[in-house]
Amino acid sequence: MAAATLLLALAVVTLGSGHVEAFDPNPLQDFCVADPTSKGNENKLHENGVACKDPAAVVAEDFLFGGLDKPGVTTSKRFGFTANQVQIPGLNTLGESHVRLDVAPGGVFPMHYHPRAAETALVLEGSVYFGFVSSYPDNKLYAKVLRKGDVFAVPQGLVHFLHNNGTAPTTLYASLSSQNPGLVLLGNSLFAGALPDDLVAKTLLTDKHTVETIKANFRRP
Amino acid sequence: MAAATLLLALAVVTLGSGHVEAFDPNPLQDFCVADPTSKGNENKLHENGVACKDPAAVVAEDFLFGGLDKPGVTTSKRFGFTANQVQIPGLNTLGESHVRLDVAPGGVFPMHYHPRAAETALVLEGSVYFGFVSSYPDNKLYAKVLRKGDVFAVPQGLVHFLHNNGTAPTTLYASLSSQNPGLVLLGNSLFAGALPDDLVAKTLLTDKHTVETIKANFRRP
Amino acid sequence: MAAATLLLALAVVTLGSGHVEAFDPNPLQDFCVADPTSKGNENKLHENGVACKDPAAVVAEDFLFGGLDKPGVTTSKRFGFTANQVQIPGLNTLGESHVRLDVAPGGVFPMHYHPRAAETALVLEGSVYFGFVSSYPDNKLYAKVLRKGDVFAVPQGLVHFLHNNGTAPTTLYASLSSQNPGLVLLGNSLFAGALPDDLVAKTLLTDKHTVETIKANFRRP
Amino acid sequence: MAAATLLLALAVVTLGSGHVEAFDPNPLQDFCVADPTSKGNENKLHENGVACKDPAAVVAEDFLFGGLDKPGVTTSKRFGFTANQVQIPGLNTLGESHVRLDVAPGGVFPMHYHPRAAETALVLEGSVYFGFVSSYPDNKLYAKVLRKGDVFAVPQGLVHFLHNNGTAPTTLYASLSSQNPGLVLLGNSLFAGALPDDLVAKTLLTDKHTVETIKANFRRP
Amino acid sequence: MAAATLLLALAVVTLGSGHVEAFDPNPLQDFCVADPTSKGNENKLHENGVACKDPAAVVAEDFLFGGLDKPGVTTSKRFGFTANQVQIPGLNTLGESHVRLDVAPGGVFPMHYHPRAAETALVLEGSVYFGFVSSYPDNKLYAKVLRKGDVFAVPQGLVHFLHNNGTAPTTLYASLSSQNPGLVLLGNSLFAGALPDDLVAKTLLTDKHTVETIKANFRRP
Amino acid sequence: MAAATLLLALAVVTLGSGHVEAFDPNPLQDFCVADPTSKGNENKLHENGVACKDPAAVVAEDFLFGGLDKPGVTTSKRFGFTANQVQIPGLNTLGESHVRLDVAPGGVFPMHYHPRAAETALVLEGSVYFGFVSSYPDNKLYAKVLRKGDVFAVPQGLVHFLHNNGTAPTTLYASLSSQNPGLVLLGNSLFAGALPDDLVAKTLLTDKHTVETIKANFRRP
Repeated sequence: MAAATLLLALAVVTLGSGHVEAFDPNPLQDFCVADPTSKGNENKLHENGVACKDPAAVVAEDFLFGGLDKPGVTTSKRFGFTANQVQIPGLNTLGESHVRLDVAPGGVFPMHYHPRAAETALVLEGSVYFGFVSSYPDNKLYAKVLRKGDVFAVPQGLVHFLHNNGTAPTTLYASLSSQNPGLVLLGNSLFAGALPDDLVAKTLLTDKHTVETIKANFRRP
Repeated sequence: MAAATLLLALAVVTLGSGHVEAFDPNPLQDFCVADPTSKGNENKLHENGVACKDPAAVVAEDFLFGGLDKPGVTTSKRFGFTANQVQIPGLNTLGESHVRLDVAPGGVFPMHYHPRAAETALVLEGSVYFGFVSSYPDNKLYAKVLRKGDVFAVPQGLVHFLHNNGTAPTTLYASLSSQNPGLVLLGNSLFAGALPDDLVAKTLLTDKHTVETIKANFRRP
Repeated sequence: MAAATLLLALAVVTLGSGHVEAFDPNPLQDFCVADPTSKGNENKLHENGVACKDPAAVVAEDFLFGGLDKPGVTTSKRFGFTANQVQIPGLNTLGESHVRLDVAPGGVFPMHYHPRAAETALVLEGSVYFGFVSSYPDNKLYAKVLRKGDVFAVPQGLVHFLHNNGTAPTTLYASLSSQNPGLVLLGNSLFAGALPDDLVAKTLLTDKHTVETIKANFRRP
Repeated sequence: MAAATLLLALAVVTLGSGHVEAFDPNPLQDFCVADPTSKGNENKLHENGVACKDPAAVVAEDFLFGGLDKPGVTTSKRFGFTANQVQIPGLNTLGESHVRLDVAPGGVFPMHYHPRAAETALVLEGSVYFGFVSSYPDNKLYAKVLRKGDVFAVPQGLVHFLHNNGTAPTTLYASLSSQNPGLVLLGNSLFAGALPDDLVAKTLLTDKHTVETIKANFRRP
Repeated sequence: MAAATLLLALAVVTLGSGHVEAFDPNPLQDFCVADPTSKGNENKLHENGVACKDPAAVVAEDFLFGGLDKPGVTTSKRFGFTANQVQIPGLNTLGESHVRLDVAPGGVFPMHYHPRAAETALVLEGSVYFGFVSSYPDNKLYAKVLRKGDVFAVPQGLVHFLHNNGTAPTTLYASLSSQNPGLVLLGNSLFAGALPDDLVAKTLLTDKHTVETIKANFRRP
Repeated sequence: MAAATLLLALAVVTLGSGHVEAFDPNPLQDFCVADPTSKGNENKLHENGVACKDPAAVVAEDFLFGGLDKPGVTTSKRFGFTANQVQIPGLNTLGESHVRLDVAPGGVFPMHYHPRAAETALVLEGSVYFGFVSSYPDNKLYAKVLRKGDVFAVPQGLVHFLHNNGTAPTTLYASLSSQNPGLVLLGNSLFAGALPDDLVAKTLLTDKHTVETIKANFRRP
C-alpha cells in the first residue's frame, strides 16, 4: 500500500465521522458524541466541529474501542509500519487521540509532524530510535534509543520520526493532544504531490533529475 | 500507605517541579522544559505556570521517562492499586500527562474526578470494570468490563472509577488531557478532611454516627 | 421533591434551550442569542454549542430575566434549599450564569462541584457556613461563616457546600464562570445512580449494608 | 471627585496587586491567590498575569470580601454614582470580578465599555434605565427600564450605560466575565485626555470651540 | 455616504457570509472555507461560527483576494477615508482580517475601537498621525506621526484613530487579529443611534441643545 | 549567508527579547510590552511568555517599527530572498507578527511551515507563484500566481512556499497570527541537522549517497 494512500487512510480514521475538531477547545457539555447519522451530517453540514448524538441516546459503547492488543490493518509496506488508530466517537471535544504503531525491523515512521498536536509515546515491545528536530534552537536533534517501558514526548508541530534499527518488531502506543492532530509526511509533501520539480529542487538544493528520480519512487506502489 | 497520603503523593508527582500548568494553553514556544532549579523557582516565585530551563540547555533526556514496564512505588493498600506516574519535564505546556495503574484482584481506584482533564485508558493486562457517571443526564452510569486491548474514554470533570472484580492483576495506561489534571477522591473529600460531621451527614442523608464510623476507617493507616 | 429530580431540574434550566456551551470560548460576534426554534434546533441538530436567533430578530428582552427578588420554584425539601436560576437567552456565548439560592434554617446545599465553572456568591440576607475543599493541598478545608454583604469565591471544579446553621432563612446570589457549569452532588453520584453497592462500599471504606441503607434514603421522595 | 480620578480608582481596585490577568485563561491549578508580597512582585516583575502566594500559605480569608451590603467609597459626584469593587485575591485566574453600584436619582454610569468582559447586573433596589448599543446591527439600542429583581446582560466589549431617571436611589450588583475587565468611559476618552481638539471635533462632526467647552467641564473637579 | 451606512458596509464586508467567528479559536482542521451556499446557511442556521464548504470542493481561489493595489469602493465623504476590505472565504477560522485604508488630506478614521481584535498597520504611502488611548494608565495617549514604511500596533479593544494632517493622500494596510473584529465609532455610538439626548448630555457633561446640534450633523448625508 | 544561519536570524528577530509567547492567548491587560531589561529577564527567568515593562514606563515608541519601505538585512543568497522582520515590543501578547519579504528573480522562499501561525501575504511589487499543500485532502496543492495587490492566505501549520519565476524582483508583506510563529524549512530539517543518513534516505525513498550529496550542498556557505 502506498504511503500516499496510507496518509489518506490515517486521515480518514483520524477524522472519525469525517469532520471533527482539533486544537480542541474545552468540552462544552458533559459529552458531545460524534454522530455521522445526525441531522447535521445527513445535511452534509460541514462546520468547524462535528454534530453530536442526542445525549439521551448515548451509551457506554460510544466511549469504547477494542482490539488494540493487535496490530492494525492500515500498513505501509514502503516504510515498514502498521497503524491501529483508536476510534471513539465519545472522544469528540475531549482533546485526545491515540494510535498503536508496529514498526518492523528496519522500518521507519518517516520524518513527519502533526500540525495540531503534541505526542507522547510509550514503548510496549522492542526498541526504537525516536527523536524530533526543533525550530529554535535551529534544526537541533533531540533523540534517544527507547526500550520497553520508556515514554518519550514530542512538542507540538515539530518534525519527528521513529526508526526500528533493531532485529525485533517494535510496538508503541502514542497519545496526541488533539482529536484531529493532522499528519504531514515530509517526503510525501515534497514528492507525492503536484509541486513543480524546479521548486522542489531549489528547496532541497539539488537538481530536477534527482527530484524526478525520487518522485518515481513515490509513484511506485 | 493511607489513601490520603497517596493523594498527596500523586499530586506531588503530578506537579513535577511543584507548580505547573493545567487546562493547558497552547505551547508558547517549541518547548518550555520545567526547571525546578531555574531563577523563578529558586526565588520561590509561584505563578500560574512554571519557569523553564534555558532552551540552550535542554537535552533529549528532558523528554524521556523510563520504567513504565514496571508498577510504580506509590501504593494504596487500602484500595489495592499502585500508580506509576510519568514524570517528563518537557511535557510542561504540552497539555498531556500519563500514568500506569496496577489494580490487584478485588482492588479499586475508587470514585474520583479530575477537575482539569479528560482521561483515556488502555488495558495492558487483565480485565477491569471501568465507568463514569454523567451530570446530565442526571447521575447516569456509563460502564463496561474492559479486557486487554480495550480503550475507554472519560469526559472532563466527571466522576469515574476502576474495579478489578476478577482474579488476576490488571494493568492500565491512562492518558490525561492536562499536565496537571488534579485528583479528587469522593471518599476522601467527604471523610478524610475537616468537614463537620453534621454537614457530611446531611449531604449523604445519613446520621452523624455513621459518618463518624466511616471517618474512623479513613483515619486508620 | 427528590434531589435527583432537583438535579435534573437545575440541569434543564441551566441548559436553556437544551444544549448550550460551557467552558465558554470568547463570543464570536456581538451576540448569539440562544434560539430553541432555530433551524438548527428544529432539526434536532445537537452540537458543541447552541444555534442562535437571526441577529436582526434580537430584542432587548432577550437579555432580560425578572423575578430574582423572589425565591424560585425548584425546591429540595430533602436538603432545604430553593433555586431561582437566571434564564437569559442572550447569555449564550457570554460565559456567565447566575442563580438565587434560598437556604432554610438547618438547610444545606450539600457537597457538590461544577465541572465547568468557578463560583462567586454574595449573601443578600442571613448568614451561612460556606466553604470548599482543595485537591492540592490534599483535602484542605477553606470555609467561613458569611454574613449579609459578604462575597466568597470557589475555584473551578472544587467540592463546595452551603450550610445555614442559623435560625433565619439565608438568601444568596451566585455567579458562575460558565453558561453551563454543570452540577455534580457527591451524595447523588454515590447513592442515587446505578453504581454497584460493593464499589460504593469500597470507595467509602464501609460495608454494603450501610450503602444499601443510605441508598434507601435517596430513593425516598 | 473627578471621573478621571474615579477611572483610576476603579482601575486600581480592579487591578488588585497592580497587574493581573484578564480575558481569563482557565485556572492552572486549584488556585493562584494574588500576592503583592511575592518574590515576583517584590522584584517588580511585570508579567502577563500576577504572581501567587505559596499554596501552603493560602487561607479562607483569601477568598472573602465583606461590606457589600454598604455603598463603596469611590464616588463620582460628577456622574452621581458610587462603586464598591469586590477585592478577592483568590479570584486571580478564576475569570470573574464583581462590583456594587449605587446610582443617585438623576445619576448615570455614563456610556462606557469593558474591553475584556461581558457584564450581567442584578437590581437590588430601585429602578434604572439600562442598555447597550451593538456594533452590528449598526448602532442599535437594546435597553429596558429595570426594577428590583431584574437581571440584564451586556455582551462583551459593547458600549452600555445606566441611568437612574427615577426619584429613589438604585443599587445594582454587577458580575463581569474577567478579573480585569478594563473600563473605558467614552466621554473621558474623548475629552479628559490629550487628544488634539481638531481630531475630536472631526470625530464628533462638531467644531473646536464646542470641544474646548466640553473639555473645560471635564477639567472641573 | 453617511458614516452610519459606512459602518454597516464595513460590517457586512467584514462578516463575509453573514455570520463568522471572532476572538478566533484555533482552526479545527486544515481549513474551514466559509460557504454561504452550504446547507447550514441555506437553512439560515445562525450559529457561533460559519458553515464551511466540503473540503473536497475547496480550490486555491478560496484563499485569494485581488485588487488591493487600488482603493476600495466603500467611502466616507464625511470623514474622508476609503476602505478596501480583504474578503477571503478561506480566512474563516484562521484568526486574521485585513483592510486597505486611503485617507485624504485632512481626513480621519475617527476615534473607534474593535471589540474583538488588536490591529497593526503599515503605511504604504504618505504620512498620518496615528494613536490610541489606554484604559489603564487612565486615558493616556500613545501617538506618533507615521511615514512610509512605519508599522504601528494598537492593543486589543482600545480606542484609536488615524488623522492625515498632511497635504498628500495616505494609504495604509491594516491587519487585525480576528476574522470579525467588529467596529465601534465613538461618534456614531453617541450620536447616530437612538440614545436619549439627556443620557448623551450627561455622558459628555454638556447640554441637550449641544447634543441635538451634533445629532443633526450625523443625520445629514 | 547559509540558510541554516538565516533560520537562526529569523528566529532571533522573531523571538524579540529571546523568549516570547505564541499561539497567543488573549492579552491579559491593555498591553504587556516586552522588556529584555526587566527583572524577569535580568534573572534569566525563562517562562512560558516574556516579562513586560512597567506600564507607567511604556511610550508610543514601544508600538512602532520603521523602515519597512526598504528590504531587510538578513539575506539568503542560497535561496534568493531577503527578510525584514517587524520588531515591536508592544506586540507582546497581541497575537500578531509581520515581515517584509523581497524575492529576487528565480528566488524562492523554499517549502516551509509555521508550527504556531496562519499567514496572509500581500504582494506589494512584482509577481510570485505562491501556494500551500494540505494534509487532508492528502498532499493537495493550492497555488496561484499572485500579482501586485493580491492577498493570499495559508492555513495554520501547513507547508507553503514562494517562487519568483519572473524577471523582476517581488516584494510581499506577510502577517502571521502569532507573535512567535516559528519557522521550519523542510530542506534544512532533512539535510542541515544531525539526522542519520539512512533515516533521511528511508524518509525520501532514496539512497544514502544522494542524501550525502544534498547534505554537502547544505554545508556549503
